[in-house]
Amino acid sequence: MPDPLVIAGKPFNSRLMLGTGKFKDFGVMREALEASGAEIVTVAIRRVELGAPGHVGLLEALDLSRYHLLPNTAGARTAEEAVRIAKLARALTGTNWVKLEVIPDPTYLLPDPLETYRAAQELLEAGFTVLPYIGPDPVLAQKLAALGTATVMPLGAPIGSGWGLKGRAFIEILTKERPAPVVVDAGLGLPSHAAEAMELGADAVLVNTAIAEAKDPVAMAAAFRQAVEAGRAAYLAGPMPPRATASPSSPTAGIPLPQPEAPT
Amino acid sequence: MPDPLVIAGKPFNSRLMLGTGKFKDFGVMREALEASGAEIVTVAIRRVELGAPGHVGLLEALDLSRYHLLPNTAGARTAEEAVRIAKLARALTGTNWVKLEVIPDPTYLLPDPLETYRAAQELLEAGFTVLPYIGPDPVLAQKLAALGTATVMPLGAPIGSGWGLKGRAFIEILTKERPAPVVVDAGLGLPSHAAEAMELGADAVLVNTAIAEAKDPVAMAAAFRQAVEAGRAAYLAGPMPPRATASPSSPTAGIPLPQPEAPT
Amino acid sequence: MPDPLVIAGKPFNSRLMLGTGKFKDFGVMREALEASGAEIVTVAIRRVELGAPGHVGLLEALDLSRYHLLPNTAGARTAEEAVRIAKLARALTGTNWVKLEVIPDPTYLLPDPLETYRAAQELLEAGFTVLPYIGPDPVLAQKLAALGTATVMPLGAPIGSGWGLKGRAFIEILTKERPAPVVVDAGLGLPSHAAEAMELGADAVLVNTAIAEAKDPVAMAAAFRQAVEAGRAAYLAGPMPPRATASPSSPTAGIPLPQPEAPT
Amino acid sequence: MPDPLVIAGKPFNSRLMLGTGKFKDFGVMREALEASGAEIVTVAIRRVELGAPGHVGLLEALDLSRYHLLPNTAGARTAEEAVRIAKLARALTGTNWVKLEVIPDPTYLLPDPLETYRAAQELLEAGFTVLPYIGPDPVLAQKLAALGTATVMPLGAPIGSGWGLKGRAFIEILTKERPAPVVVDAGLGLPSHAAEAMELGADAVLVNTAIAEAKDPVAMAAAFRQAVEAGRAAYLAGPMPPRATASPSSPTAGIPLPQPEAPT
Repeated sequence: MPDPLVIAGKPFNSRLMLGTGKFKDFGVMREALEASGAEIVTVAIRRVELGAPGHVGLLEALDLSRYHLLPNTAGARTAEEAVRIAKLARALTGTNWVKLEVIPDPTYLLPDPLETYRAAQELLEAGFTVLPYIGPDPVLAQKLAALGTATVMPLGAPIGSGWGLKGRAFIEILTKERPAPVVVDAGLGLPSHAAEAMELGADAVLVNTAIAEAKDPVAMAAAFRQAVEAGRAAYLAGPMPPRATASPSSPTAGIPLPQPEAPT
Repeated sequence: MPDPLVIAGKPFNSRLMLGTGKFKDFGVMREALEASGAEIVTVAIRRVELGAPGHVGLLEALDLSRYHLLPNTAGARTAEEAVRIAKLARALTGTNWVKLEVIPDPTYLLPDPLETYRAAQELLEAGFTVLPYIGPDPVLAQKLAALGTATVMPLGAPIGSGWGLKGRAFIEILTKERPAPVVVDAGLGLPSHAAEAMELGADAVLVNTAIAEAKDPVAMAAAFRQAVEAGRAAYLAGPMPPRATASPSSPTAGIPLPQPEAPT
Repeated sequence: MPDPLVIAGKPFNSRLMLGTGKFKDFGVMREALEASGAEIVTVAIRRVELGAPGHVGLLEALDLSRYHLLPNTAGARTAEEAVRIAKLARALTGTNWVKLEVIPDPTYLLPDPLETYRAAQELLEAGFTVLPYIGPDPVLAQKLAALGTATVMPLGAPIGSGWGLKGRAFIEILTKERPAPVVVDAGLGLPSHAAEAMELGADAVLVNTAIAEAKDPVAMAAAFRQAVEAGRAAYLAGPMPPRATASPSSPTAGIPLPQPEAPT
Repeated sequence: MPDPLVIAGKPFNSRLMLGTGKFKDFGVMREALEASGAEIVTVAIRRVELGAPGHVGLLEALDLSRYHLLPNTAGARTAEEAVRIAKLARALTGTNWVKLEVIPDPTYLLPDPLETYRAAQELLEAGFTVLPYIGPDPVLAQKLAALGTATVMPLGAPIGSGWGLKGRAFIEILTKERPAPVVVDAGLGLPSHAAEAMELGADAVLVNTAIAEAKDPVAMAAAFRQAVEAGRAAYLAGPMPPRATASPSSPTAGIPLPQPEAPT
């Protein structure tokens, strides 16, 4: 039963996107990409341009016949900077897809909702396919989708933290409303975090640090691949509802347990 | 790289055990078993004997050349009852393996640590291979393992609840000490719960309700299989530590985030 | 040791603000206000104007010599509507303080970051003292504070849900940065939720439903008062850090426990 | 409205018990006791006997006309040792109350359910009033209460960890069943943790490290006192149920939110 992820009209088989930063070397990166099954990979174009550590020769190291490149605007602190980097990315790579990141916050690396919205407007007008990185904010997601962004990419937790779905209740609302395909991005530290996002109804997840900084990045990439597939399959398979009663495999089932509570 | 689960000297490839209750019919049960990749399946021998709904013909419906049968003592409220059921199981099935459940609590279906310990003593003396079902209690696990049980099987949450790892901090201690192979049993409602248990270092998990009561039990069984494999692979791959700093893919990494806290 | 809450230069002794909706009658409301020790009370001015149930005669029912009135813009879905309601509130009540709520979302009652920002700009230009209601978004909080808002009021969870601090990790960042006094507003269901917010460093909390809909609203108001004071006192008293080691009251202290993890 | 805590027929006004270890000096300890309002204080009798650091002169430093002394059996690893320490305590202090701790686990300081049960039997036969320290295990609590213990004292988290209610779902079951007065003991790090335990229906809490190791132990003791009172008051006041719908202060209330889930 085919169940493609469709973004901007383009179908993908994989629901796991990978970032390309922080790998020990390009060899490991390529093997991890292979093991992950990812089709979409993000690249920090500004760091490539600057020749930041780990980014010299990065574009050349990727087999672009095989991966759909998703340049991001990492480094941008304002809408203007993001638009400039997006245009640079388009010139360098030929794609008009862009993962829009506007991050003014030097400490926690959280995105700016106002500048992100402004940049999305400009980039959509300039013909870009825009995948904006946002906080776990269902209303902002609605408004970006109404503008015409191709996805919304709410964060699980601060970039690189590995904390998992720290705004889970809000991600749950966001995936239920799903004004555009939802890609949970940032902060996922373990395969179970990725599975959890998919079980809630996310369309895809993006992972970088948790794979690149594992002791064995290639094995971890394969683990994330399986977890994303498991989470998606569970979502489609119709999970049992968590229940407020214990339930043995017998006719005496159904005795009251503690009251259900708020989403965790 | 082979990574067998070894219980009582017997190696298994699968780290997912399945219960056989609550399935719509034996056809679905067999397909779900197949999809799960499980090698060990539990059967409530007392319900089989009583001809409880869903249990008539259950043993015949299982291909015992293929699955390692693990009779359980469901229905026992005391050590005496558990020993009696275990002996009945051995007579009926020929195996001396037994999943020891002593559950006096008619409401929440939680196990009795004292009677479980007593029954384990008796059953070990009588030559059984004992896999005891317990609360998330690291000290009880130590003591049972010291007696000679083949595993310890701490619960994630009350049977059939689907709540996940509600005593996670204690499961974490228990898997770290790991006095015997740890099988997390009961209360897992989603593949992400199973992956989480494996990431903590559990040797295996046992699932029943979450598969049997999914809208599509066969697809859910396959999803749990993947999640268990993903969680195990992640454990072996050496996850990044959750960190107290945000960490972009750049040389400016490492700015303080909120203090790390207690295990969740 | 005096520890006043200062908002827009005005000191308050109480760090618990109360909403005035949902009470059974004005008598109960007045008693609950009294028991809470609150000095700042919010009123949904648009509902007062419309004569919505529970709002007819509300302003008259409040002893305004005693409480600092904080009209809110509940009912506004856009910046324009919010500005209009704020001006109506000023005309009706004589105060230029306004709790700015812009809530387009008919389902989950979450605030709109973009319209809230726009409305804040306009209201500040028009001389209002603005206390904006926002999601748990540290960057938005920074930007509103930079505009000159008197506080930021991040939500704990959706209005009236009683779920507690569902975006706790983000509230933690927000209170650490504290670009303006932080008032946690919405979704607090129990005194422990209020204490938790204060322990994280919030300056105050706002509660309505959890008090108005308790079986005994007056006793619950007193309970919230104590919890807010307890949480504040704990914050000032310098809590022990959660530790990764068990620690008995003896010289053998300090043996490793499970690794600390991400904020919960 | 009087709401005494009754243990073994003896009424107390305070629901906060304090431990006496880890204080900087006896002066601070006495001030913290005063500020906490505690009436019951625990003392590690074995450490007093051994003259362990901080325990020389401890009994003399307590005003025993004012506090109800609760000697504990800290240091005991078996039932035998616990019984011996309890008898020593009775001889030294004249009370037959004993907080029963049997802790074989040198690493995580978790109690032994089997030895605790055995010791409780012996101590009850010897005429002691027994308050046993246990894991968050509702079945063990039932069995100890059936023996005749005066309370059950389930742990929130490992001693001295400050993690809060790590087995909350099990504490919730335990307080609902409440076979004897429930005193949550160990692991509470913040006033909000104490309030949470009381809101769940615990009869009392015991705190030591979180007060003794705060920067300002006296202020922290007062904060815990308020939090315990707040939590108890909230429990009696009948909290709103957490709801699955957002609920504005208006006739349009009641739109669906995410499904409620398992207890957290």
